[in-house]
Amino acid sequence: MKIVSTVKLKHLLDELKDEFNEHEFIERESLDYLTPEDLSSVEVLIAQQTKLDEALLGQMPKLKWLVWYVAGVNKLPLSYMKERGIILTNARGIHKIQIAEFIFAYIMADYKHLAEFQELQENRGYKTAIRTSELYEQAICFIGTGEIAKNAARIARAFGMKTIGVNTDGRSVEHFNETEPLTNRRSAFTQADIIVNVLPETAETIELLTREDFEAMGKDALFINVGRGTVVAEDTLVKVLENRVIRKAALDVYEHEPLNEDNPLYQLANVIMTPHITGLSRHYNARATNIFKGNLKKGIEHSSAFINLVDYDKGY
Amino acid sequence: MKIVSTVKLKHLLDELKDEFNEHEFIERESLDYLTPEDLSSVEVLIAQQTKLDEALLGQMPKLKWLVWYVAGVNKLPLSYMKERGIILTNARGIHKIQIAEFIFAYIMADYKHLAEFQELQENRGYKTAIRTSELYEQAICFIGTGEIAKNAARIARAFGMKTIGVNTDGRSVEHFNETEPLTNRRSAFTQADIIVNVLPETAETIELLTREDFEAMGKDALFINVGRGTVVAEDTLVKVLENRVIRKAALDVYEHEPLNEDNPLYQLANVIMTPHITGLSRHYNARATNIFKGNLKKGIEHSSAFINLVDYDKGY
Repeated sequence: MKIVSTVKLKHLLDELKDEFNEHEFIERESLDYLTPEDLSSVEVLIAQQTKLDEALLGQMPKLKWLVWYVAGVNKLPLSYMKERGIILTNARGIHKIQIAEFIFAYIMADYKHLAEFQELQENRGYKTAIRTSELYEQAICFIGTGEIAKNAARIARAFGMKTIGVNTDGRSVEHFNETEPLTNRRSAFTQADIIVNVLPETAETIELLTREDFEAMGKDALFINVGRGTVVAEDTLVKVLENRVIRKAALDVYEHEPLNEDNPLYQLANVIMTPHITGLSRHYNARATNIFKGNLKKGIEHSSAFINLVDYDKGY
Repeated sequence: MKIVSTVKLKHLLDELKDEFNEHEFIERESLDYLTPEDLSSVEVLIAQQTKLDEALLGQMPKLKWLVWYVAGVNKLPLSYMKERGIILTNARGIHKIQIAEFIFAYIMADYKHLAEFQELQENRGYKTAIRTSELYEQAICFIGTGEIAKNAARIARAFGMKTIGVNTDGRSVEHFNETEPLTNRRSAFTQADIIVNVLPETAETIELLTREDFEAMGKDALFINVGRGTVVAEDTLVKVLENRVIRKAALDVYEHEPLNEDNPLYQLANVIMTPHITGLSRHYNARATNIFKGNLKKGIEHSSAFINLVDYDKGY
């Protein structure tokens, strides 16, 4: 097959060429550098740029398999791709290490008052009335119980935390003390000190969380969003933070990305913000390539057995 | 027995009085408020102030048991107390939750570049070249393998880290992948990305770490000190940081406490500093009192079976 990568794989591409010498590998700087010959002949495309739309895919008549080096598929023309019968695999699961770790970075920043201690150090102060909190015996609720949440819940248990998971049907999942169905999520929020959204963006998750959800979390709650920003309308989020419906938020994702300088979230004192970086990792491409290798080894004729195969009907 | 507390125990004292009504409990604001009658009659003293010296103990002829609500006994007149046959119990072990958690707060602050992301947020910036590191598969070495180190090593393993412990004889300890004797510590340091000192202050640990130890840790290492500041001479520590013998330090304890404003550590860019607070907890007195209760239940005639009994010869 003709396999074109628009992701800079460097030494990983050499490994692919060595291991799969029955295929032809071509590397391009980005989607913009695809030649007419690439477009007309590509069968397997490795890509990560959201500009991959219906028009561009339309120029690739032989495309059988899109190897999407991103977890979220919400920006792709899914119904068009389904119709074309293009196999779609994504990079879900390779974020579980770095995102789970960052969840605890946010918790530490908040619970251990790291910014205040930094200020104290800058002012060369030694005496302090700063009193920190413990993770031990706190309850943490994850909205979504996929790989990221499971990995984070496992670590949370090591810290002595109680873990609650919210998923579609309330099924039990490893590393969670309790699980609740989405319909019953507010009773889970009420119990929790920390609520973490890890849901992908689908038709069902857009603006899932309303003011009532934040009221259930309560005025001492820390809300962390490392899923997708669209899970809550930005103006709702700004209001519940302004009105101290919840105590604090730590956000990596936003309804409108990239953020503008005049975004009202920047004016709030009770929010920790990072620019959609928790999924990044120095090991990202190596991990995504390992998944691709496993699938390529199985062969495209066995695509139903592929790891990270996207179900067009579910949207993930 | 006549039991005098100079620690503000509030409701915990009421619980003690209820549970042990065969003893007489008296509470004083601090050591300064002890009356001549208290001094002449006290048999069990609950205290935490370092001003408890030989002169003051000399005024307590009936003192049988000092219940020290602090872990470190290095400031107490140990040889005098040994001679008097005073039973000494301390608060070791109740720090394991909060100090272990703070070790990961330091690691997150460093590995996840939290201060840089905070600055980015303050400047309303979204694009960033900040690249974070993962704890996963990093090696962490603890100097000391007591309760704090064990608890932190257990959490480190949940993060997928390799754990190495250094103790006097290199004996195996739960939650450590490897252990090394103190004499062989530098080979452990060489392997580790993060080195954490949790040793108490004893004659053997004062200035244990020299420049050669930091050279073994190496230029990418993060050194965390939550044990005692005296484990390394301050000028050695300042030099190894200035000269980038190691990459960074996170310090909660110092050779000379409290720190003066002109301490040279404040001038370094590669140090995270907190003012000896990692052992504090909202639950501190409750946990220390639980240990005291367990011992009091056994009875002073069975003091050899006391939990947290200090061995005067070992100094901890």
